[in-house]
Parts: sequence; C-alpha cells; structure tokens
Amino acid sequence: MADPTLSNSLEEFSLIARLVAKLPRSQRTILGPGDDCAILAPSRVAEVVTMDSMVEGVHFRVEWTTPEALGARALAVNLSDIAAMGGTPAACVVNLAIRPRLGVRFFDRLYAGMAKEAAAAKTDIVGGNITRASELAITITVMGEVPNGAMRRDSARAGDEIYVTGTVGDAAAGLRIMQGAIKARGKARTYLVNRYLSPSARLEAGRRLARMRPIPSAIDISDGLMQDLGHVLERSGVGAEIEVEAIPRSEAYRAVAGDDPALALSGGDDYELLFCLRRRESEAALSRRLGVAVSRIGRIVGRRQLTLIGADGTRQPYSGVAGWNQLREH
Amino acid sequence: MADPTLSNSLEEFSLIARLVAKLPRSQRTILGPGDDCAILAPSRVAEVVTMDSMVEGVHFRVEWTTPEALGARALAVNLSDIAAMGGTPAACVVNLAIRPRLGVRFFDRLYAGMAKEAAAAKTDIVGGNITRASELAITITVMGEVPNGAMRRDSARAGDEIYVTGTVGDAAAGLRIMQGAIKARGKARTYLVNRYLSPSARLEAGRRLARMRPIPSAIDISDGLMQDLGHVLERSGVGAEIEVEAIPRSEAYRAVAGDDPALALSGGDDYELLFCLRRRESEAALSRRLGVAVSRIGRIVGRRQLTLIGADGTRQPYSGVAGWNQLREH
Repeated sequence: MADPTLSNSLEEFSLIARLVAKLPRSQRTILGPGDDCAILAPSRVAEVVTMDSMVEGVHFRVEWTTPEALGARALAVNLSDIAAMGGTPAACVVNLAIRPRLGVRFFDRLYAGMAKEAAAAKTDIVGGNITRASELAITITVMGEVPNGAMRRDSARAGDEIYVTGTVGDAAAGLRIMQGAIKARGKARTYLVNRYLSPSARLEAGRRLARMRPIPSAIDISDGLMQDLGHVLERSGVGAEIEVEAIPRSEAYRAVAGDDPALALSGGDDYELLFCLRRRESEAALSRRLGVAVSRIGRIVGRRQLTLIGADGTRQPYSGVAGWNQLREH
Repeated sequence: MADPTLSNSLEEFSLIARLVAKLPRSQRTILGPGDDCAILAPSRVAEVVTMDSMVEGVHFRVEWTTPEALGARALAVNLSDIAAMGGTPAACVVNLAIRPRLGVRFFDRLYAGMAKEAAAAKTDIVGGNITRASELAITITVMGEVPNGAMRRDSARAGDEIYVTGTVGDAAAGLRIMQGAIKARGKARTYLVNRYLSPSARLEAGRRLARMRPIPSAIDISDGLMQDLGHVLERSGVGAEIEVEAIPRSEAYRAVAGDDPALALSGGDDYELLFCLRRRESEAALSRRLGVAVSRIGRIVGRRQLTLIGADGTRQPYSGVAGWNQLREH
C-alpha cells in the first residue's frame, strides 16, 4: 500500500531486501523477499499458522534491552506457538511499524537478532512489510508443519496428567525487577531478567511430544500458568487439580520470591509448554524423552473447576486470573 | 504474549473467537481461531504468502469511511498481492492493534466487512491477535496457492508487451478529493472516492493470467503505475517505453483531471494488475480472456531506462517517482 511518508517504496523494498538477503534459505523457500508474495514449495503435511505482535510501551520498552534481543524475542514468542502445536517452523513474515528516532542501525541490529533466532530454528524470514507508526511494533506470522499431527487445546480428558517444561514465574519476576517492583541483584537478577528478555521456544520438546499417542493436549505458557491452563480447560470442557508445591520454580525465583507461588501461578512470558498425558509417566523418563526438565503439576478432572491443592492437602478453588491485573503500564 | 492492559487474554480470545466464529470455512481449514495456531490441510501445490499493514493516520482515517469498508479494504490490499502472483487465497490471519475510543461495535463492523471480503474471495480468517496501541492498525497475512505457477516481478524480457487491467489514477484522485486537494462533485466524486475506499483485488484475472505460457511477469499497482513498473524493471534488469495516451483513465478521472496523466502515472492504491506478455495480443481478446478490461500501454526494452512516449511521438525519460511525494499526511 502506498505510504506517503515512508515510501517511495523502493526504499522500503531495498531495506527489507537488504536486511533479509543474507538469511539462509530453508528447504521450502522458493522465492524470498522482493516480490508481491514469497513463494514456498508445497507443504505435503498439515500446516499451522500463528500471528503475534509486540508493541512498544505495551509489551516492551526499547531501553530495556538490545535491538538484537528484541528482534529475537519477537520471533521466539511466535515460534513458541508453533512449538505448542508440536510443529516445525517453515517460514516467517515480519511487519515492522517503525517510528521516528530509531535509525537504520537499530533495525539492522533488530533484524540480526531475528535472523539468528530464525536460523537456530532452521526457518526463513521470507518477506514482510515496513510501515510508519507512532510506536515501534513488530508483528510476525509464522507458518509451520505438523507431520505428526497437531497438539490442540481441546483434547484434554478427565484423568490426564498435567506437566510443564522448565520452570515458571521467572519471566514475570524478571519483568518486575526491571519495573522496580521487586528488588534483586547478582545472578538471580541476571537470570530472571534474561528469562523475560530472551525466552526460548520449546520447539524440540513440542515436536517430540507430538509423536506421542494419543497426541497430548498442549499450550505454551505466555499469559501465565493458570490462565493458559484455563484456555485448555475451557476448550476441552474439563477442570483440573493443581498441586501448588509441584509447580517448578527456579532457584533464582525462590531467591526473590521465597515460597510465594503467586508469580509462578499467574505470571506470563515464560514460553514453557504445558501438556496433558493420558498416562502418568515419570518426570525423569519424560525429561529424557523431551530433552528438557519436566514436572508433573496435577491432573485433569471432569468437573469444570480449577482447584489448587496446598502442601498440607487443603483445597481451594482458583478464581480469576490475577496475572497481569496489577500492572497497567510497563 | 501477555498484555497487561488488554488481557486478561480470555477476553481477547473470546473477542476473536466470537468475531470470526461465524465465518465460513474453506477447504483447507482444519482448525480456526482459538488455539495457539490455526491448522490447515496440506497445500499439495506451491504456496504464496504476503503481509501488509494499514495504520491509522498513515494509510487511512477512521472518519473517511465505514468500519465495514475499512475491514474490507485491509483484506483487499493483501488479496491483491495474491492476485499479482496469480494465486488463490487459502487462509488469512489478522492482527488488530486497537486504541481507546473505538468500541466493540466498531470492531464488529470492521470484522463484518473483512468477513464479507474473505467470503467473496472464498477464503477464511483462521486466526489472529489483538493488541493495544496508540493508533488503530490492521495487519494481515494471507497465504495462497499457485497451482499454475507464480507470476513474478523478475521475468519481464525485452520485447514483452505491457498491459494493465481496468483504469489507473482513480484512487489517487479519490484520495485527493477527500483531502480537499481536488474539487469534485456528483457521480465523478462518488466513483473516485469509492475507488480509493473500496478497492477490489483482481483475483480472477490473476489466476487466468497465471495459466498463460510463458507465465507473465506481473505486479499489482499499489504504489503507482510508474513506481510499480519500476519494481518489475529493476527485478528483471530491463527498461520500458510507455505510451502516455494509452494509459487507461476513467471518465471520472478525466472529469476532474482532464488530460493530465500525472495521477494515472504516479498515483497509488488502484490495485489493478500490470503484466508483461511475450506476444502482443489484442486488448479485446485479452479482456474477454481475463474477464476485465485490459489496455496495452507499452513494451519492455533491453536498455534499463523508463521512457514516456507522448501523443506526438516525443520521448522523455521518466525520472523519479513523484507518486506520493507531495503528500505528507492524509
């Protein structure tokens, strides 16, 4: 579309072309940036597609991080949706809304971070668009493939065991540290802030999960453990019982939050996977199988209620999603 | 991604789900909105993918049009990129950046317009994302299929004949009418403003073109005839001679601009197709074949220069892309 200020779009074209020309090409890319569309070879297997956006002042602040980390994160959060379906990313397209006072050097570095993240996931940035706006926004669509079938939110059944990868609450703690709401220093601070700024998509774990039969129900933890579990419960028409003490928390998390599970329950941005298995499996065996630490945190029940079980066996209904409510602005 | 103000993302989820739940499903849609990703059946043929964004204040003003027309236009400009490759749209994902003071009713109507446009193109909105921002922005990715091969910008050859569909310059005139830069009234005004606000993607013409052999080089006219032709010339490493009098202009265009070809040469947003054929064909035969009026406007030459030929045979190099330069804000 004609943009009266950014374009002449020859500039736009050459910026995109220059920035992504050096990216490696994955198997399916026939034509990358520079035409009306990118061209991909036939998929042969079922495809998955997701779109997510990071807006300055809503999801990030430029001064919090490097342009490279920002670019990598923008792609990682999309790749995480592909991981949650058990998919392999095939192609990405990127829309950049750029604002004044961010120069070409900034965007070179942003793209470098994105390109590195794409290369690590063996995928291509095949095209995109640049537009002017009053705040920086990075909107990405990733297309992926699910050769072994897709893990969905709607297939959890009563009796399923609920697991999560890695640890949760770290990113929320890291965000609060940057906001000054939590005090931390040293290694714990670095670890938690980094968990917020540089999440990894659990692509390999997702792929391995999707090979299990029956195919697990799964979701990535982006909005917070309880809230994302809530999506699974709602779509599957079931409830769950969660053992609070079983929720995996990092040493760094415990260093700043002690035994308080609040951020682990409701904090977002961890991009770990939550999944439900028909049979109980040992955490050790599952961890080996998926290549990442796995914790069993509870079970799916038929009654449509989400119950927290304390260390002393007390049961209380979990109501509401406190996750982000206390925060109005980053 | 967690959004501290818009989400709890259950609301976001239910908004998207509610808005697109009633859309018809195309053949390839296995799972629509509501999961981490949409799921599509294998493509079996080569795919094309494009992404474009409309930002309030840059590409449109809310008060210029209805929400329905805005939604339809946001999708149409993306479908036009699919048309330019000769493709058939298969699936769309939509990112909405929403701002204060636009209520649910506005977005219901916006989606209704988008859904109608999608249905007309026999495609689905399979997913998306909603985020908060300080200005409204609609960013769409469309995936399509090219069973007959893709029309590219890089395949024009010296000796090719250059054609365009429909008429050009109308949308640019319509935009200037809304901006008050051109005076117009009655039918001409309505026609031109409508050409700007409600463009159609030339999907059927594109599909029919892609069946021709050799496959034509093509582009959609979004930035302006000369500028978009320039993209083809640059990618193909060739030049062109354009007969100014042959550039198709509507009655309404002539009513407001007379014989001045400036807007037809450089005005954007028409979303007609420009294509290059190895053999000269009659306009009448081509028009019948493509189902839309077609005009021959010049030819591709080996020398990398863009030359305008006047009615009296005078030749002058076309330098620069004046298109949007005189406009700084809509």
